[in-house]
Amino acid sequence: MEEINNIEVVPCTESDYLKPFRVHYNQNGTKKSWDFMRTHDSVSVLIFNTTSHCFVLVKQFRPAVYMCEWEKTKMQPPQSADKTEEGASEAAAAESQEGLSASEGESSSQWPPASAGVTYELCAGLVDKPDLSLEEIARQEVLEECGYDVPASKLKRITSYRSGVGVTGAKQTMFYAEVSDDNCVSAGGGEPREGELIEVVKVPLHEAMTFAYDERIPKTMGVIFSFIWFHNNMSPKYKISTNV
Amino acid sequence: MEEINNIEVVPCTESDYLKPFRVHYNQNGTKKSWDFMRTHDSVSVLIFNTTSHCFVLVKQFRPAVYMCEWEKTKMQPPQSADKTEEGASEAAAAESQEGLSASEGESSSQWPPASAGVTYELCAGLVDKPDLSLEEIARQEVLEECGYDVPASKLKRITSYRSGVGVTGAKQTMFYAEVSDDNCVSAGGGEPREGELIEVVKVPLHEAMTFAYDERIPKTMGVIFSFIWFHNNMSPKYKISTNV
Repeated sequence: MEEINNIEVVPCTESDYLKPFRVHYNQNGTKKSWDFMRTHDSVSVLIFNTTSHCFVLVKQFRPAVYMCEWEKTKMQPPQSADKTEEGASEAAAAESQEGLSASEGESSSQWPPASAGVTYELCAGLVDKPDLSLEEIARQEVLEECGYDVPASKLKRITSYRSGVGVTGAKQTMFYAEVSDDNCVSAGGGEPREGELIEVVKVPLHEAMTFAYDERIPKTMGVIFSFIWFHNNMSPKYKISTNV
Repeated sequence: MEEINNIEVVPCTESDYLKPFRVHYNQNGTKKSWDFMRTHDSVSVLIFNTTSHCFVLVKQFRPAVYMCEWEKTKMQPPQSADKTEEGASEAAAAESQEGLSASEGESSSQWPPASAGVTYELCAGLVDKPDLSLEEIARQEVLEECGYDVPASKLKRITSYRSGVGVTGAKQTMFYAEVSDDNCVSAGGGEPREGELIEVVKVPLHEAMTFAYDERIPKTMGVIFSFIWFHNNMSPKYKISTNV
């Protein structure tokens, strides 16, 4: 289990990761503006282990998710005696105007448990190497994050779509990779030097649909969609039934 | 068809919409930092019209998507004679360091057609009214964007998940709404005073799965996932077959 503490939130005036821009344009003769962020396209991979009949997912602590949960606790009427009583909507409005105001000194009881920021996701990565194909990038992620060495030629393209259409609009391409225990060459876990702390988890096929629709298990839509895609497209091949 | 011109991109140092923060924290004893953005949770609604057996989607110009496509044209070796020849990867690296540099004065031939920024999406909206239930917010969006008046009690929750786990981490909740032509009270199209220019489009059920997997049609994963969800969960009820 992750242990998260000494949390401090500060404004971010300059970032290597978040680059906001504003575009002014005319749409059908009307002047408009829109704030957006530059981001990379990405790939994700549904990995199915044919030896153990399990899906292979990654699980990690996501600060952005955690901060969403933390804000929700702030929107509740304060429980501690040292704050004045406020209605949830008033608190939310005030918080919305003032921005975040956490500091290391605040009581740790205000912070939700680390598990509030942990999500289950498909193995995925950014498309930031122009000389590599999407399949090659996906292959590298499968190796780095999950420890399976599969040739790029064995990756099957599922489909592509746009993510974050309001802010980033990047293109995501999803692949399917069949692996076996024989392809497993390391424990995976990502690149520690890049600060990745990734846990590789297996979801047995016969539990997959229950997992997909259990809202108590925090996950991305990619996990849900790809499990259903597998059920519709791959299960017949294996002549196995999933628990839909 | 949308007409987009007079495009100008500028840095965005202050935004009502993009609020970057940095969180410092200790994870299992290791000091880490992460840049993230505040955002609202959101709802989306798969709308099925039982009179016409069509899905009701919204289609709109998304500046963030358009800018992604524009950047891709810049990553190609320049076609015009007034620029020095550069390899695609060099151009991409240089562009990545210098940021965006478009201005109104640039040749319009550099800009992709407006259609490059148009996406098909589920009816959706932000959860920014703390006194309303998710169902009520979803109901309002169905009315404003698509013109159907359906009671919140008729909205069926499909599931929820996390979006943009790297940067925003917001929670999205997806609903299913059955409507008929009798529920149609306006043309929809969003709130023009909020700058929304939304086109309501119908996708016939018998074309839905072809639509979902046609990568030439730009769309969100929500569209693909929800069409498949309908196929698995609702089609049997209607005793109708989709073109999977």
